[in-house]
Amino acid sequence: MKIMKTFGLLLMMALCVTNTFAQQNLFGGQDIKSGVVNDDNTVTFRFIAPNAKLVQVAGDFVDKVEDNPIGGLVGTGLVDMKKETDSMWVYTSKPLKSELYSYLFVVDGVATIDINNVHVYRDFGTISNVFLVGNGLADLYKVNDIAHGSLTHVWYDSKALGVDRRMNVYTPPGYEANKNKRYPVLYLLHGTGGDENEWVTFGRTIQIMDNLIAQGKAEPMIVVMPNGHPYLEAAPGESHWGYYKPEHNHTARPAATFEEIFPEIMNFVDANFRTLQDKSHRAIAGLSMGGGHAMAISKRYENTFDYVGLFSAAGSLRTDEDVEQLKKQFANGVKLYWIGMGSDDFLYQRGVDFRNKLDEMGLKYTYVETGGGHVWNCWREYLSILAPQLFK
Amino acid sequence: MKIMKTFGLLLMMALCVTNTFAQQNLFGGQDIKSGVVNDDNTVTFRFIAPNAKLVQVAGDFVDKVEDNPIGGLVGTGLVDMKKETDSMWVYTSKPLKSELYSYLFVVDGVATIDINNVHVYRDFGTISNVFLVGNGLADLYKVNDIAHGSLTHVWYDSKALGVDRRMNVYTPPGYEANKNKRYPVLYLLHGTGGDENEWVTFGRTIQIMDNLIAQGKAEPMIVVMPNGHPYLEAAPGESHWGYYKPEHNHTARPAATFEEIFPEIMNFVDANFRTLQDKSHRAIAGLSMGGGHAMAISKRYENTFDYVGLFSAAGSLRTDEDVEQLKKQFANGVKLYWIGMGSDDFLYQRGVDFRNKLDEMGLKYTYVETGGGHVWNCWREYLSILAPQLFK
Repeated sequence: MKIMKTFGLLLMMALCVTNTFAQQNLFGGQDIKSGVVNDDNTVTFRFIAPNAKLVQVAGDFVDKVEDNPIGGLVGTGLVDMKKETDSMWVYTSKPLKSELYSYLFVVDGVATIDINNVHVYRDFGTISNVFLVGNGLADLYKVNDIAHGSLTHVWYDSKALGVDRRMNVYTPPGYEANKNKRYPVLYLLHGTGGDENEWVTFGRTIQIMDNLIAQGKAEPMIVVMPNGHPYLEAAPGESHWGYYKPEHNHTARPAATFEEIFPEIMNFVDANFRTLQDKSHRAIAGLSMGGGHAMAISKRYENTFDYVGLFSAAGSLRTDEDVEQLKKQFANGVKLYWIGMGSDDFLYQRGVDFRNKLDEMGLKYTYVETGGGHVWNCWREYLSILAPQLFK
Repeated sequence: MKIMKTFGLLLMMALCVTNTFAQQNLFGGQDIKSGVVNDDNTVTFRFIAPNAKLVQVAGDFVDKVEDNPIGGLVGTGLVDMKKETDSMWVYTSKPLKSELYSYLFVVDGVATIDINNVHVYRDFGTISNVFLVGNGLADLYKVNDIAHGSLTHVWYDSKALGVDRRMNVYTPPGYEANKNKRYPVLYLLHGTGGDENEWVTFGRTIQIMDNLIAQGKAEPMIVVMPNGHPYLEAAPGESHWGYYKPEHNHTARPAATFEEIFPEIMNFVDANFRTLQDKSHRAIAGLSMGGGHAMAISKRYENTFDYVGLFSAAGSLRTDEDVEQLKKQFANGVKLYWIGMGSDDFLYQRGVDFRNKLDEMGLKYTYVETGGGHVWNCWREYLSILAPQLFK
């Protein structure tokens, strides 16, 4: 008789051999839970490593430790776990404020995934475990017991690039039931380390929209998340490049820029989803590179979007043509030009320069500055702030 | 100035502190690739662990080692990596036959994810890295440079269970362009350790269907992958239960069985996708528990499916009513009753008993026996064999 699930059992056997942990179950590998949020918003981590000298948790929830050369340098912290049995290391955090957090374990200096938390997200070439602390802001990032929209992974034909490309499209609750209703569209763009999937995973777009709509705070809308890298067809693992680790040293020269192909994306969406197809029902927003894209696309197609959102935007006005386009865009009317930036963002000064330019030109925008750096915590919050202001 | 991606940098710093590896990039964490398939179908694994005494690869591609108490027991193997520098462990496999493989590293007896392969799939409570070796059967499991269908995650209202529940729906290439065309439907069901996502991840359903359709081997069809556990609304992390580790010790007593709610699923699909809604355009197949579901549902609704697929099925005829339903189903006509089983499957004898019963009753079926056990390798292959025989 063969076993049911090779890996579950393999882990079980591996553990039996090291004689460290008796209770296993057939499918679950190690019968241990880790990254568990407790009722008081503390979080408990567990890891079996009988021979390790030191196991640490590295996470964006750990206080910076000034005299820690690792934690101090990177703006996050490392905290030691304690060996509570012959093999089990444990750490329980202090109560954490509501947020979606990421972490890894560091075992004798070697970074590793927490194998007892099956929720692992990828951010460019890095994977980490995640957990969510509720009772606050991050309740918007939860799947709650409310009506849910749909998410579709769909491919469109880019004639300009000569390839099919993947996008993710959120349709709001009620889209299936109300077959004659048309909806406004938010185009939501990722950063240079991202792809069409990141607003879904770390970005929690589906949950944010479902929750804001259920609370009556946001209009039901379609959210389109395309892939903003013209040299890519889709996220890693989703294209014919296969399973690969993303790198920034690509040398491909795509036949067109993302700005140039953007009308292909809009045409596909308008042809295949029940969209409202006028300026007052179109928004475009993005983070970092995607903020640059949102700026560039909204001024290039200068009478297309009534709502623009720039999150920690990596964009600037370089040429006279840029300035002229922006002038025209504002002359045509923009209902909301929304800019969000974290006070610790490495692009902070670029944001200052851009806003100074807007001020000089007398162009009206809304500016929200939060704490935090160039991180998803900010971008999820910016989407949560912006979405309720759209299409009203 | 804050850093771009906390974790990438944290890893970089962690590595600098251990003084083991100089070349990093900003986003990628460690600038190392692992689980890399080489041109000759060998696969190279790399892991940095300067202080480890032994790093091993545990994978479903490793030969069984008879005198290895771990490998021998679980039907897979462990193989030692070699320390090639002060810190870097390396292993290159022999050339592997075409397949989608899973693996972990075992560091001094502790199982861990390969952090330099960002492709991690979950199977119930276990996560593992994956890689794909092409030039054979697994070319069907690849995203190839062909026309792609869409995948939609959508929620339906189960009145019988009193909750909204999630399902995944594949629509074939051309579905968007041919707005008046209707398609046959395959309902594809998961096993007891699975959920609506597993036929998408380990099952490679999207890729198998895209490839078979592009090759002209399968009819364009809709594939519906519902969640077969009535006590669940959706996969772990996708419901209001939040991020949790699945367990089998749930005690919930759902108000209805999966067999009972199945018409709700079909009604939702027929109302929201362009389906052909007669028996000759409906198929149902499943693996393990899902094979039991396919058997039970197809005989309960005895004039609904012309095609039935039982993959390593965990189902049997227990009562006289079961036998009567099956008789009626076959009397109404079944175009294909397809049974697949691996010779090493722990349910092998159950399959023998069921086929003996069918033989006694004079009911016609198609039987395919492969090597292998109760594993995804078999189920992907069974879908690849069955799909071309549907709706013809």
